[in-house]
Amino acid sequence: MADSLTLRAPLDMHLHLRDGEMMELVTPLTAETFSGAVIMPNLVPPVDNLKRLQEYRERILAAKGDHKFDPYMTLFFRDYTEQELAEARDQIIGIKLYPAGATTNSEAGVKAIDSVEHVFKMMEEMGIPLMVHGETHGFVMDREREFLTSYRHLAEKFPKLQITMEHITTADAVSVLDEFENLRATVTLQHLIITLDDVAGGLLNPHLFCKPIAKRPEDREALLNAALEAHPKLMFGSDSAPHPRSKKECCGCAAGVFTAPLAVARLAQLFDQHSKLDNLQAFLSDNAQRLYGVNPPAKEVTVERGAFTVASAYEGHGQTVIPMHAGETLDWKISQID
Amino acid sequence: MADSLTLRAPLDMHLHLRDGEMMELVTPLTAETFSGAVIMPNLVPPVDNLKRLQEYRERILAAKGDHKFDPYMTLFFRDYTEQELAEARDQIIGIKLYPAGATTNSEAGVKAIDSVEHVFKMMEEMGIPLMVHGETHGFVMDREREFLTSYRHLAEKFPKLQITMEHITTADAVSVLDEFENLRATVTLQHLIITLDDVAGGLLNPHLFCKPIAKRPEDREALLNAALEAHPKLMFGSDSAPHPRSKKECCGCAAGVFTAPLAVARLAQLFDQHSKLDNLQAFLSDNAQRLYGVNPPAKEVTVERGAFTVASAYEGHGQTVIPMHAGETLDWKISQID
Repeated sequence: MADSLTLRAPLDMHLHLRDGEMMELVTPLTAETFSGAVIMPNLVPPVDNLKRLQEYRERILAAKGDHKFDPYMTLFFRDYTEQELAEARDQIIGIKLYPAGATTNSEAGVKAIDSVEHVFKMMEEMGIPLMVHGETHGFVMDREREFLTSYRHLAEKFPKLQITMEHITTADAVSVLDEFENLRATVTLQHLIITLDDVAGGLLNPHLFCKPIAKRPEDREALLNAALEAHPKLMFGSDSAPHPRSKKECCGCAAGVFTAPLAVARLAQLFDQHSKLDNLQAFLSDNAQRLYGVNPPAKEVTVERGAFTVASAYEGHGQTVIPMHAGETLDWKISQID
Repeated sequence: MADSLTLRAPLDMHLHLRDGEMMELVTPLTAETFSGAVIMPNLVPPVDNLKRLQEYRERILAAKGDHKFDPYMTLFFRDYTEQELAEARDQIIGIKLYPAGATTNSEAGVKAIDSVEHVFKMMEEMGIPLMVHGETHGFVMDREREFLTSYRHLAEKFPKLQITMEHITTADAVSVLDEFENLRATVTLQHLIITLDDVAGGLLNPHLFCKPIAKRPEDREALLNAALEAHPKLMFGSDSAPHPRSKKECCGCAAGVFTAPLAVARLAQLFDQHSKLDNLQAFLSDNAQRLYGVNPPAKEVTVERGAFTVASAYEGHGQTVIPMHAGETLDWKISQID
């Protein structure tokens, strides 16, 4: 059994950096250990025009410090014109669609997918990938499963449109992934590890509350197996989503788990535990490079067996964020970054 | 449609009063509108001997003030001797069994039900009812369903043992209720109203987090229908469970919803909404009187259509407790208590 592993160009294909002081706090925490990340556009107001996108990108580049790190920018889906899409194409990795109200800052999202199919058609023709927060407004445990109908419909109707099912959480979503050539998916760290039991089975744990909510043991099992086997259409996307401590430890807690600073070490521990370390490179970078055709800056991150105590909080720029595994000691750590 | 209703001797067949200052705060809030309540014994240490039970009862009677109110005492289930049971029989309404670790202060509970069947046998012979927190240690959404096997086993093996399935939360439990003559059940206010969506579907709401956790829409539907139809073996049991605000709005929140001060008005609103006001008397008192053979003090509680704004918090004796529907306005109110 290997005691260390060098990962080339780790990628986080689903990341929330927020803006302002929070962005300044969390951006270096990802830029240190990842070569690139897909930056989600659900700011207030949403990133839905090129000027806003370019300015946001500049702020991220300023915040990342000296780290080699590419932010892959996304636009917030709306009824774009052909000209807008043509101008944006080379500056984005894709367009992110949120059903209205499905998660944090998604109020400006799409109310009826049927009404915007002309945009999908143009995206398909221009080769712009579509990324989707795939949840209905149904019962919390059924929302993703119910949305699979829409994924099937879109995948079939727009066979050349590259569609990413973001942060999948169910065994059913893993199955759908294999039904259509043009579907791919991201999965978070927490959904490989936790179930609803960890959120609400003992004491209520707001720091593990996220959307989509963690599901049943058999769902976690299916997701974990697909990740461990380096399923060729599955990519790591942390969905790391910082909220100020005051929005988490409160009476109505916001959804999102902050994993950026510990994701690589924790994934190494997880893959090692299942004797699948050899597959981590594909899950954490190669699949994404191939599926999106990106060429991230060279970065080698070496992980090795050894104690790593996760910080109890990340503080700075007037912000406090509590990470997953706060204060816990992991069995793997990052030993070197080149 | 009636605009008012006079309820005779409302009973709360599952109540947590805690002890000390919290008990002093919450006891009058139940004693005002209920004629009697089954007092749960999961204190620290548990109420598992007669001396402790008698002293606890005295403290409750002192705390209730001038209200006409009978506390129906329960012992915390353990491996009691025949003599202990014989001495307790006339002072208790039943014995409450907790699987070890299933909920708040249940660490001293039963680890293996099979090992204590001799106690069930004695209880059956002496006519002492058994009340059960029916959850396994499985996945949070399956715990009650998995425990139904144990209910069936007990009901069949001890056909004269009166068994109350406490705070049922699933359609399956409603079905089991009808399978065996010696099974009865309590249901809370919140499980007639909420699902997991209300706990974790939008923002996380610790004030609606309880054990058993609220389940699926079809479960709520089955429970509500059984209550509205005044199912003859279903009784109201609020499971009103005060926790200090600091234990609810925190990083690992305790389970329990506090409903005592608003339960009667909210039930009237609910039954009225479904045009079933006529069945509220049975659900809220008659079923329990018949099933347990209790004779509560006379009390008439008149509810009527009209605005009632629930307090945002109940404070006193150094305690602060947030109720369900805090700060919301209900459509029914209590207009008179005689």
